[in-house]
Amino acid sequence: MKAAGLNVVRMGESSWGRWEPADGKFDFAWMDEVVAEMGKAGIQVIMGTPTYSIPVWMYAKHPGMLARPLGGGDTGYGMRQNMNIDDPDYRRYAERIIVALVRHYKDNPHVIGWQLDNETSAYGSANASVHREFVTWLQAKFKTTAALNEAWLLNYWGQQVDSWENFPTRDFANSTGYKLDWARFQQWRASRFIGWQADLVRRAARSDQFVYQNNASLSRAEVNAYDMTRPLDVAGNDVYFNWQDEYDGRHQTLQGNLARGAKGRNFFVAETTGQAQGWDAVKQIPPYDGQMYQDVFANIGNGANLHMYWHWSSLNAGQEIYWKGVLGHDHEPNRIYAEVARTGNDLKKVGAALVDLKKDNRVAVLYSTDSNNALTFMPFDKWTKPLPPSFHADGYRRIFERVNAALYQAKVETDIVFADAPDFSKYKLLIVLALYIADDALLQKISDFVQQGGHVIMTFKSGEANENFMVRWHTAPGPLRQAAGFKYQETSTLLKPLKLKGDPFEVGDGNTVETIAELLQLETAQALAYYDHPFFGRYPAVTRNQYGKGSLLYQGTELGEAQQLAVLKEELKRIGLYGPDQELPPAVQIKHATSKAGKKLHFYFNYSAAAVNVGYRYGKGTEMLAGAPVQAQQDLALAPWGVAIVAED
Amino acid sequence: MKAAGLNVVRMGESSWGRWEPADGKFDFAWMDEVVAEMGKAGIQVIMGTPTYSIPVWMYAKHPGMLARPLGGGDTGYGMRQNMNIDDPDYRRYAERIIVALVRHYKDNPHVIGWQLDNETSAYGSANASVHREFVTWLQAKFKTTAALNEAWLLNYWGQQVDSWENFPTRDFANSTGYKLDWARFQQWRASRFIGWQADLVRRAARSDQFVYQNNASLSRAEVNAYDMTRPLDVAGNDVYFNWQDEYDGRHQTLQGNLARGAKGRNFFVAETTGQAQGWDAVKQIPPYDGQMYQDVFANIGNGANLHMYWHWSSLNAGQEIYWKGVLGHDHEPNRIYAEVARTGNDLKKVGAALVDLKKDNRVAVLYSTDSNNALTFMPFDKWTKPLPPSFHADGYRRIFERVNAALYQAKVETDIVFADAPDFSKYKLLIVLALYIADDALLQKISDFVQQGGHVIMTFKSGEANENFMVRWHTAPGPLRQAAGFKYQETSTLLKPLKLKGDPFEVGDGNTVETIAELLQLETAQALAYYDHPFFGRYPAVTRNQYGKGSLLYQGTELGEAQQLAVLKEELKRIGLYGPDQELPPAVQIKHATSKAGKKLHFYFNYSAAAVNVGYRYGKGTEMLAGAPVQAQQDLALAPWGVAIVAED
Amino acid sequence: MKAAGLNVVRMGESSWGRWEPADGKFDFAWMDEVVAEMGKAGIQVIMGTPTYSIPVWMYAKHPGMLARPLGGGDTGYGMRQNMNIDDPDYRRYAERIIVALVRHYKDNPHVIGWQLDNETSAYGSANASVHREFVTWLQAKFKTTAALNEAWLLNYWGQQVDSWENFPTRDFANSTGYKLDWARFQQWRASRFIGWQADLVRRAARSDQFVYQNNASLSRAEVNAYDMTRPLDVAGNDVYFNWQDEYDGRHQTLQGNLARGAKGRNFFVAETTGQAQGWDAVKQIPPYDGQMYQDVFANIGNGANLHMYWHWSSLNAGQEIYWKGVLGHDHEPNRIYAEVARTGNDLKKVGAALVDLKKDNRVAVLYSTDSNNALTFMPFDKWTKPLPPSFHADGYRRIFERVNAALYQAKVETDIVFADAPDFSKYKLLIVLALYIADDALLQKISDFVQQGGHVIMTFKSGEANENFMVRWHTAPGPLRQAAGFKYQETSTLLKPLKLKGDPFEVGDGNTVETIAELLQLETAQALAYYDHPFFGRYPAVTRNQYGKGSLLYQGTELGEAQQLAVLKEELKRIGLYGPDQELPPAVQIKHATSKAGKKLHFYFNYSAAAVNVGYRYGKGTEMLAGAPVQAQQDLALAPWGVAIVAED
Repeated sequence: MKAAGLNVVRMGESSWGRWEPADGKFDFAWMDEVVAEMGKAGIQVIMGTPTYSIPVWMYAKHPGMLARPLGGGDTGYGMRQNMNIDDPDYRRYAERIIVALVRHYKDNPHVIGWQLDNETSAYGSANASVHREFVTWLQAKFKTTAALNEAWLLNYWGQQVDSWENFPTRDFANSTGYKLDWARFQQWRASRFIGWQADLVRRAARSDQFVYQNNASLSRAEVNAYDMTRPLDVAGNDVYFNWQDEYDGRHQTLQGNLARGAKGRNFFVAETTGQAQGWDAVKQIPPYDGQMYQDVFANIGNGANLHMYWHWSSLNAGQEIYWKGVLGHDHEPNRIYAEVARTGNDLKKVGAALVDLKKDNRVAVLYSTDSNNALTFMPFDKWTKPLPPSFHADGYRRIFERVNAALYQAKVETDIVFADAPDFSKYKLLIVLALYIADDALLQKISDFVQQGGHVIMTFKSGEANENFMVRWHTAPGPLRQAAGFKYQETSTLLKPLKLKGDPFEVGDGNTVETIAELLQLETAQALAYYDHPFFGRYPAVTRNQYGKGSLLYQGTELGEAQQLAVLKEELKRIGLYGPDQELPPAVQIKHATSKAGKKLHFYFNYSAAAVNVGYRYGKGTEMLAGAPVQAQQDLALAPWGVAIVAED
Repeated sequence: MKAAGLNVVRMGESSWGRWEPADGKFDFAWMDEVVAEMGKAGIQVIMGTPTYSIPVWMYAKHPGMLARPLGGGDTGYGMRQNMNIDDPDYRRYAERIIVALVRHYKDNPHVIGWQLDNETSAYGSANASVHREFVTWLQAKFKTTAALNEAWLLNYWGQQVDSWENFPTRDFANSTGYKLDWARFQQWRASRFIGWQADLVRRAARSDQFVYQNNASLSRAEVNAYDMTRPLDVAGNDVYFNWQDEYDGRHQTLQGNLARGAKGRNFFVAETTGQAQGWDAVKQIPPYDGQMYQDVFANIGNGANLHMYWHWSSLNAGQEIYWKGVLGHDHEPNRIYAEVARTGNDLKKVGAALVDLKKDNRVAVLYSTDSNNALTFMPFDKWTKPLPPSFHADGYRRIFERVNAALYQAKVETDIVFADAPDFSKYKLLIVLALYIADDALLQKISDFVQQGGHVIMTFKSGEANENFMVRWHTAPGPLRQAAGFKYQETSTLLKPLKLKGDPFEVGDGNTVETIAELLQLETAQALAYYDHPFFGRYPAVTRNQYGKGSLLYQGTELGEAQQLAVLKEELKRIGLYGPDQELPPAVQIKHATSKAGKKLHFYFNYSAAAVNVGYRYGKGTEMLAGAPVQAQQDLALAPWGVAIVAED
Repeated sequence: MKAAGLNVVRMGESSWGRWEPADGKFDFAWMDEVVAEMGKAGIQVIMGTPTYSIPVWMYAKHPGMLARPLGGGDTGYGMRQNMNIDDPDYRRYAERIIVALVRHYKDNPHVIGWQLDNETSAYGSANASVHREFVTWLQAKFKTTAALNEAWLLNYWGQQVDSWENFPTRDFANSTGYKLDWARFQQWRASRFIGWQADLVRRAARSDQFVYQNNASLSRAEVNAYDMTRPLDVAGNDVYFNWQDEYDGRHQTLQGNLARGAKGRNFFVAETTGQAQGWDAVKQIPPYDGQMYQDVFANIGNGANLHMYWHWSSLNAGQEIYWKGVLGHDHEPNRIYAEVARTGNDLKKVGAALVDLKKDNRVAVLYSTDSNNALTFMPFDKWTKPLPPSFHADGYRRIFERVNAALYQAKVETDIVFADAPDFSKYKLLIVLALYIADDALLQKISDFVQQGGHVIMTFKSGEANENFMVRWHTAPGPLRQAAGFKYQETSTLLKPLKLKGDPFEVGDGNTVETIAELLQLETAQALAYYDHPFFGRYPAVTRNQYGKGSLLYQGTELGEAQQLAVLKEELKRIGLYGPDQELPPAVQIKHATSKAGKKLHFYFNYSAAAVNVGYRYGKGTEMLAGAPVQAQQDLALAPWGVAIVAED
């Protein structure tokens, strides 16, 4: 490790059974030795609280602490992350080991911080006690069952709740309002658990030890990345992807934007792909030469302050045999190790100048955890076409990834802002994607943003339902109607893709739209494109409305890949966000940041196996990795899977 | 509603929780108001017994009333139609609300009739009490376990039942006889439940109030549409389909034939598609202009006396947000409303003359609920090819839909007769499709029909098993052998489609047969077609036998679409049922009926987006919708998605 | 039967409920009659112990004897082969019926032997008592939990077992070591059960009555065919396949090789396809003329001493209606019967000379039950392409079938040797396929075989993990490294097929490799082929190493069908195993054997619908079926689906 230039290691979070081999019997000696060795090698340690996988003896004593699956069904020991995180026995044991562990390492100079648990969620717990607390949570929210019945429209099928005592469990619930609030409740429980651990650790830890978690990723139903990162010092994310031909840096950037946006500051890449991953061996994709090196600098360019592989060395047995680390099963140096070592040694030269980079983006994308969940409960598509690698099927996630991919293809760096506490006042362009669940205040805020001079690109489904999953009783798009400049009363699925009439965005064969068509009726907006179809042709597909000092471009249908990119670029030009970055070759990406020392940095990445020259269009400076001077307007040569970082003078 | 010309509304069946917000506490006031409003607007009310969805408090008191799923597994509150309909607690509550409700509205002049429950079935209940009653039911049927063992061939795997006490549950049963009788028992329970409700309602209701149910549709395993409509005054069906390009009137006609055949008289379209439907939003297909208007008259032409949309206005929350009614989520007039209003207002002019139309068809199709079920338990195909819209995969249902589609393409109006009490003596042509389960009497009746001059088109699998799901011990086709004029001892799956030798039905590229080949050995029949294959080529694919005064055409294989239509048309010509209707353009359909006043009516429908002229080949009369005179032999102009109704003078 | 020349029948194994209609009440009379009839007809009887399907009354008394499914879930009466074979009540009843039955028929001269149970396995039983015995089994194997924790690497996720009492059940276990040992334990239980029955029967039976079972087939996870045939006199296998165009003799030969290899002597074809099979009617494929006749001689040529159809006559009801026997549902003579009769009567002439044939093959394929199981738990592929008929998807089974198919296409007769007790010292060529699980001793034995002059063809994944499912800690291929002459540290999935550079095996369009690429680094081996790819191209795909007096050819990737055949043929030529057999036309197969009388026999089979002439290249002799003399080097005419058997003088 030392030879490879690594200087931080995370340990301990997977070892409760080893820390505490029997109830109340602690063993730290084995780890003390490892930490001491690390210390000698100059490697700092992040210690993890080991609460995500319970020991055998604990289950034997308290089998009831496992999460009961939604809808019932059997459960048992074997999997990790399968307990009810609010089970009192579990909490008691967890508190004991956390406090013991933190006290033990509090004064160890090599231990610089704490990871809380691992990829925490509520694990789908539908235990009786969870149900009871949910009822209490609902009582606090709605006060009366009458208010609940109205908010959730429970007279449908005559399912009004007559008393809190009779409130049915989530197991077979059909109510959309129920589903959404249950998801929020589970998110809240998961965030509360992290907050509880953060408090426990902080009370016992050394004051300069930081506390973080690795869950600021595009997230599961039961995780609200924004809320869960509140109690932490730093947000961390786990970025897994496949190397070789699927690797293009898109996913890393999206996850980086999300982690940076969650906490509003630099973040940790807490885990990322070593050789390959999988709970089987069916998709083992080790990197081509150069990819791993390049990827570290891409994460740094996104604002990462730490880059950790999961994991150093591969496991020789168990479920994760083929979740392969830097070293393989022989634990000997190999091709991957050599590349990591090259990276580590270069970082010794340039790393200090790349910490705490500041990003200053003009474009933001709004992320709505609620809309993601709600569109799973009430999907508008079933996506059967092959997707680009690492896209996730279905609804919100797909449109979110698709438009973010267009932004990436357009080489536009973006921030992610969260619907949970949105602040987009400083941006020039705000992207709003299928914002299905939104309260009136959020929609008003978007309208105000436009009126005051902001620009918005928005898609279908936005503003449709309120915060209780109640589709609005006013003509769509409800409170957005004035800013959007149209209304609609009907939505049609598109069973087959259509074209836009006259190819208005000049994309030739790429002229396709699909999935959905809201039948927009213009009020003050102008149509940018119409469908090419005898019936749909009377409705506009894309509109733009000037509203106050700003504008709102609306896509009432799902644009094909080329079409989406073209619409985006046209809008960027119109609002003055189009520059030389946008003219870079397709395989080249660029990132900008300002260093702590105030220097302007420009990162260039070649995501291809062919060398390429790109025009450097910024000020005179130095390419940091090679240490070579760079002139304004000169050409930069990028090797296959190469990277260059220019610091302006 | 009034403005839209609507004059009947169904209400109340989904509102048990609102009728009875707490145990024994009834609330009718809210509905009294609505009924009064309706009365003022001249809209009559059908009230529904609200027993298909139980209130929250009832489940809390009696969780055991829910249907236990076959094979076990968890269940709970949330879904509708999930109770054991014979649970004594449930029955007691149901009786109380029904009686209270009927008494309350018995004298309300606006309430013209009663809907019983909603789309009732036995809901797969495999509760212990249901098992016990099943054993009693079997005892009554078979008397001794020895008789049962023999009928079901239970010495197979040594599974003879030694005593009624030890009779195993249905859960993991493999016996084919068991499966079929269990399905019948469940059908019987569902029909009994409807009979019980009919009696309850009739005892309390006003004598001129009718009683009906909405389940005379191509049905679930647990519904026998023939039996279930016995206790009713009118049969009702729910007709759901997609508008736009999938819409062609075929499904409506088939469902109409079935509802008309079940009760042997005019029927109600109890629910049909408004804007769109779905328990999600993945297939929202609102109509093209004209489709909704036309569709009402198609149902009337099939014999419907009532046409109700499900539903008037869309729900803004819950599982059925996107089961969209005439009005959308804004509850404002819209394009759909405008078309419904146009229809309603035209019906004010012509409706009275279109009630109680008489149909007089020469062709009948036999429907066998038992065969449908049995071929699910022992399927002969796994259908993987894309099907035309609204076809249902697998076995009996598919061949039934396929041949009915050929009849529709041939513009032949048909009746459906039920194997449960078949009467086809008045028809000229009887279609018998995969009649897998049939007792000797039914087969004899078909033979007699042929002998006495009837014509039959029959497919493979007919006559194979007896009423106990016992494949006959005599050489196939058993009792049909004389009428069919062949025998066979072997059946082969066709793994790939074959051609017929020499394209005998002149369908060119459409010359394909598939799925199955019974290896027919001619006795008195003649071969109409042979397979084009070295092995199968020695067996005929299609045969015809003259038997007595009639004929039986047999298809030992599944004919491709064009092939099936060609065989049907050739047979229609041969037996004198081919006329000008059959020469109409593909997209045009025709329906005939006689009005109460004794006038001959001819309905023409253009199922396409292109205007078309068709030759009117009946007597001088008047086109009712436009009020224009029509000469014999003149051309009728049909608008896109247009309809014309000519009443002969 | 007699007329058809049948001389053995198996009966009774499916009739516990009939043998013992009530607890302790036995009835043999019905069978006595049948056996007597058989005796009169000169047909000998194999009687089966009826323990695979329990009677209704037994379940009613002891519902707990059923196998609890892994992971829990409901279970109940209906299926066969669903009990815990170690349940004490079940064992008591089984012993009682077995002893009574054997005593009853012990002295019946027509009863020549006993079948034990039917296709026995452990039926996935995860009952509490099974768990307890597993813990005991593990204790015997590992002695301490510490040893177990180390062998299974249970500190992963902190899941060390602290005491045998707390040992978790298999239900939700993730440990790979756990999964493999559980599979072995279940195999051991199944084999023990068969041993127990064998002892019971032998103690009560006549000394000349043999004992066998029908489970020496490519097997389920819970069956180890090698171990299970130890207690038997003869191995039996059940060979099911489809006739018509899928039928090519490949599967029969593979299963025959396996049954012959399991016991190291001639075997019984205990069940094989009559007309067709299936638990439904979706794939009914009766034979073309000639196929059934030919197939009997193919099995004989593989070393079968008995050939029994399942079954004589078809069942008219129950789950297996369409598992059709020789006779159909009318139980009358038919086309199939005629062919069986032709076969039976020819066997009367030539059968005696075809019993106890000796096979003397030079090529062996190693079969590893453990690797088959382990690669299910940790698969390296997900196979989505259409497979040739009767191939089974996924991992070990697929590569095993694929390479055996190449051997069959190359007309190379092979033995199967079992990794459980391998002896391949007498072979010239050993095929080792994805031998993922192997202890050091087995790998050493393979190395020694090479060193002493043997030749090996080996594929990827061999030697990867040890007997505890622990991937080796030494650089791959571990103990095989010297013999293989290379090492590798990385493995990549091939997401798309690649070509080999320069088409080294001259297969044109067949030049594809796929699924996996181990990144081999040559040490002493030479490369036979490289990938055609910028990155993978630096690694060899196929290597050969001279080691001692022998050689090891290694395939680090999955070769396409043509490629695999070409590599195999080239290697056969190189080591002197290529002769005139290998030049036979594609559809022709050849088998060799030596008769009891010491005559050399050569079987020729034409697996096609076209007649073909083949060059006979062995000594002067007689074609046995026609009784015609055959000269060396003459041409033999083979009818469509024809067979010729030449006995050298």
